[in-house]
Amino acid sequence: MDNQGNNKSNNKQKTKKPDPGRLKIIPLGGIGEIGKNLTVFEFEDEIIIIDCGLMFPTEEMLGVDYVIPDVGYLTKNLDKIQAIFLTHGHEDHIGAIPYLADRFRVPIYGTALTVALVEAKLSEHPVEKPDLRVVKADDKVSAGRFTVEFIRVSHSIDDAVAFAIKTPMGVVVHTGDFKMDLTPVGGKVINLSRFAELGKNGVLALLSDSTNAERPGFNISESNVGETFIHYFKQAKGRIIVATFASNVHRLQQVIDAAKIYNKKVCLSGRSMVKIVNVTRELGSLNLDDEMLINIEDLKNYRDNQVVLLSTGSQGETMSGLVRMAMGQHPRLSIKQGDLVILSATPIPGNERYVYDVINMLYRKGATVINDTTDRVHVSGHACEEELKLMISLVRPKYFIPVHGEYRHLYKHAALAEKMGIKKKNIFIPEIGMVLEFSRNGVEASETVSSGSVFIDGLGVGDVGNVVLRDRKQLSSDGLFIIVVTVSKDKGELLMPPDIISRGFVYVRESDDLLEKSRIIVTDIVEKCYNNNASDWSTLKNSIRKEINYYLYNKTKRNPMILPIIIEI
Amino acid sequence: MDNQGNNKSNNKQKTKKPDPGRLKIIPLGGIGEIGKNLTVFEFEDEIIIIDCGLMFPTEEMLGVDYVIPDVGYLTKNLDKIQAIFLTHGHEDHIGAIPYLADRFRVPIYGTALTVALVEAKLSEHPVEKPDLRVVKADDKVSAGRFTVEFIRVSHSIDDAVAFAIKTPMGVVVHTGDFKMDLTPVGGKVINLSRFAELGKNGVLALLSDSTNAERPGFNISESNVGETFIHYFKQAKGRIIVATFASNVHRLQQVIDAAKIYNKKVCLSGRSMVKIVNVTRELGSLNLDDEMLINIEDLKNYRDNQVVLLSTGSQGETMSGLVRMAMGQHPRLSIKQGDLVILSATPIPGNERYVYDVINMLYRKGATVINDTTDRVHVSGHACEEELKLMISLVRPKYFIPVHGEYRHLYKHAALAEKMGIKKKNIFIPEIGMVLEFSRNGVEASETVSSGSVFIDGLGVGDVGNVVLRDRKQLSSDGLFIIVVTVSKDKGELLMPPDIISRGFVYVRESDDLLEKSRIIVTDIVEKCYNNNASDWSTLKNSIRKEINYYLYNKTKRNPMILPIIIEI
Repeated sequence: MDNQGNNKSNNKQKTKKPDPGRLKIIPLGGIGEIGKNLTVFEFEDEIIIIDCGLMFPTEEMLGVDYVIPDVGYLTKNLDKIQAIFLTHGHEDHIGAIPYLADRFRVPIYGTALTVALVEAKLSEHPVEKPDLRVVKADDKVSAGRFTVEFIRVSHSIDDAVAFAIKTPMGVVVHTGDFKMDLTPVGGKVINLSRFAELGKNGVLALLSDSTNAERPGFNISESNVGETFIHYFKQAKGRIIVATFASNVHRLQQVIDAAKIYNKKVCLSGRSMVKIVNVTRELGSLNLDDEMLINIEDLKNYRDNQVVLLSTGSQGETMSGLVRMAMGQHPRLSIKQGDLVILSATPIPGNERYVYDVINMLYRKGATVINDTTDRVHVSGHACEEELKLMISLVRPKYFIPVHGEYRHLYKHAALAEKMGIKKKNIFIPEIGMVLEFSRNGVEASETVSSGSVFIDGLGVGDVGNVVLRDRKQLSSDGLFIIVVTVSKDKGELLMPPDIISRGFVYVRESDDLLEKSRIIVTDIVEKCYNNNASDWSTLKNSIRKEINYYLYNKTKRNPMILPIIIEI
Repeated sequence: MDNQGNNKSNNKQKTKKPDPGRLKIIPLGGIGEIGKNLTVFEFEDEIIIIDCGLMFPTEEMLGVDYVIPDVGYLTKNLDKIQAIFLTHGHEDHIGAIPYLADRFRVPIYGTALTVALVEAKLSEHPVEKPDLRVVKADDKVSAGRFTVEFIRVSHSIDDAVAFAIKTPMGVVVHTGDFKMDLTPVGGKVINLSRFAELGKNGVLALLSDSTNAERPGFNISESNVGETFIHYFKQAKGRIIVATFASNVHRLQQVIDAAKIYNKKVCLSGRSMVKIVNVTRELGSLNLDDEMLINIEDLKNYRDNQVVLLSTGSQGETMSGLVRMAMGQHPRLSIKQGDLVILSATPIPGNERYVYDVINMLYRKGATVINDTTDRVHVSGHACEEELKLMISLVRPKYFIPVHGEYRHLYKHAALAEKMGIKKKNIFIPEIGMVLEFSRNGVEASETVSSGSVFIDGLGVGDVGNVVLRDRKQLSSDGLFIIVVTVSKDKGELLMPPDIISRGFVYVRESDDLLEKSRIIVTDIVEKCYNNNASDWSTLKNSIRKEINYYLYNKTKRNPMILPIIIEI
């Protein structure tokens, strides 16, 4: 590479050590946002990718199903890519694989559950199966000049790992999503001593999960939630319904364990719940005896206090098991007087309204609802302030880079690191696409590569952009006003009265006057145009649009999309 | 009235007391929802109305500006209405007056600030000014056989009252929005002894604010927030910006008081902030010396640590002062390094996302942000569990009716009342439009009157309904696909290739194939129709809609609104 050559000649006299080269760390997602995590590590002509996630659309992204990272930079450097490494199986870390793996065609490494979830996901997409490879915690995988070590962490999904990435420039630790649970369900404790050991040997940089950087203290242990379940399961006189994230396998395990204590059968509701329970039972990471698991059809054979329903819908998702039950739209289940519903989750910001709507519906149907404002039925999967500080104090990195969070989270996390004694100049709050370049001269944000969001809408990947969204926005707030004008080809004479079709604008049956007056305005414009011998349709369209817009706004204070259509005969 | 006649003849033998008549309490808003509070009290041929509020639209109400109660029941009983009584000046209690006062044409009673805010609101609407009458706390106003007593309460706006409504059936207490603040800013303490006295003399029913029924404990006093302001104002080295609800006059007062202590000038940003400060200074309920108040233009004459900006935007509202500053779109102000921004409010459910976006923008611009997760910069305006219990224990009503809340709040509040010893059969969780009829035989939910929501969109009141919203919904998620077919009038022969216009569906320039294939499909349908001598255009339209829908969905998994337009020549 040219750079290296130049450096060599420039610096030959100053230092005896050879130039160690340049390591680039480029986040293409998960910065300034929660979701679509994807980080690029590049050393000379080799690239590895950490995580490959999607994000759920915000309210403004009308009609969009998912958002994935813009990987234009990687597409331009396909030959450099060595491998993809996955920290865990959540959508925001693996969800973009069905859309991107085809393009990269490199081995994908993850722990057993992570790989199983990727496989389940791929089975729903018509794509070629990539080269998936299962790795265990403590294993090391080489990819070019990188060696990636898998280190067990705690998180709200089983089998989550952080990475210690050995590079020619030094070791970089990427935590992925993590928290510290010292009494985890299943007993697989976060490998703190390995982080300490790495720290002792010297870590170049730490990239650490910032999601909960605003929260003081230390998370309570997941096992505390199990105690709450036992408390309620013991006293429940009716049916119990627990709604949670299907992927929170430890949570599911605790529901199952509590059910077992009180001799209750477990029934699953929701497609992803059934999928995850199947996958994790096969892997042996979920213990659920065959005789405890019953089908919805068999519920009728048991008394209400003999069953626990494990359901999706803890975020108030419209199509989920719980919501359909609460709305009376589930084909085989409905909420009834005496049901105890435990919402074992916290609303993700933006979902509060949906969750409250479900709670209201549940109460109306006679259920009692326990949620995280009522009792200890949920703990977060992300490290709080004291855990973040502990990670920094163990890893003792030279450079600190907060990742996975909105700006407010990154900012707070950076402030924590500074308080811990990391020099301010060694702390970098990144932006998406920012290239953090590590060289013998230190670190600099050398450039910004193309990056951003690609929208998935139905089968379309990237065919919905700002123009389409702007149109949807206008249509959604004020609807549509179509004016069809039929004119003679030669002279532009109006051949029939203008036709008007509106949707989403006003209730048409009560708006005769508005439509009639609009027709008159359009007729006038067309006739004036005809009298002037003007047959420039785009000018005509513009006049119609302008005059009708003016008229409608004055009458209604609304701005529907106005579409003049001119038919020449 | 017939009823009374019948009762008399039926019951003559059983009791010597004359029939006291029937009192109806009918909530037309504020039940199962937060907002558009309006309660009807009806005794025989007389009606009084308590509050007349609006609600802000939820996300699904695409393009809707406000929601007001459906007052069809009142419109049918216009001659019965005696007066409107307002508890306080928040939008959800007075906001519908500009849309409804014209119809009712009766005196409207409220305290000084409430009336001033109604006047300010009316000045923005082209309606005749209603008969507004200012009443003081402790006053009583007669309206027909009702006598309404104004009782001071604490709330997040000054001059809030509850009502003790004397009716021929007994006294009914309606709390309006309230909390109990024993060291309020301004010193006007909630009149607890009056509630106790009423309770001692016997109260038929209590309608009480349920907004915070899920929150345990007792609110901290508003004056605690002032201490936090003093703490930050003392140490601030740069500019201070406090964003809060303009109507929270006590909060504004505390900002001003803290500014005064540290010799800072106060500058106002945001239209409603300027409006409320003007109104309350004139009324004497806000103390702000002339020499402390400076204009935005004069900011340049002061050092940063000499000024405090009081701004709207605590909910992340797009057009508010704070948001425009944070986005760099304010004509005269922008956030800069060293600014301290205090968000003195809690996000209303549904607004979290907007508030977090503002916080992110503020940090990016170099400001430090203090909000209610960071420090004590906000207290709620609504009574928590212990305050609600205290109200019940003082008023000791025979019947209890939780109001102002979603179902989950009403349910919890009802449970509290039951715990307090009110008999379950005497507790009524109402629904909107439910008629609670009090007679000598007790209370029953006798019927449900027409009620619900009326949407305000631009100048339209009620012209946007479910059909329009359904269309907006479809247009917003998948856009629009218009197909123009020109056929001969006599035979239905296709005269030119079908024309296709799409918006918000796909990026058209990259979708030539899709459009071309659609044209072919439509051509085939029209030709088949022509060959069959069919000239039933609605059948033709349906075929086009169906086939194109099928084709587009298969190709894109999207469902745009398909609009076939047939032009007959």
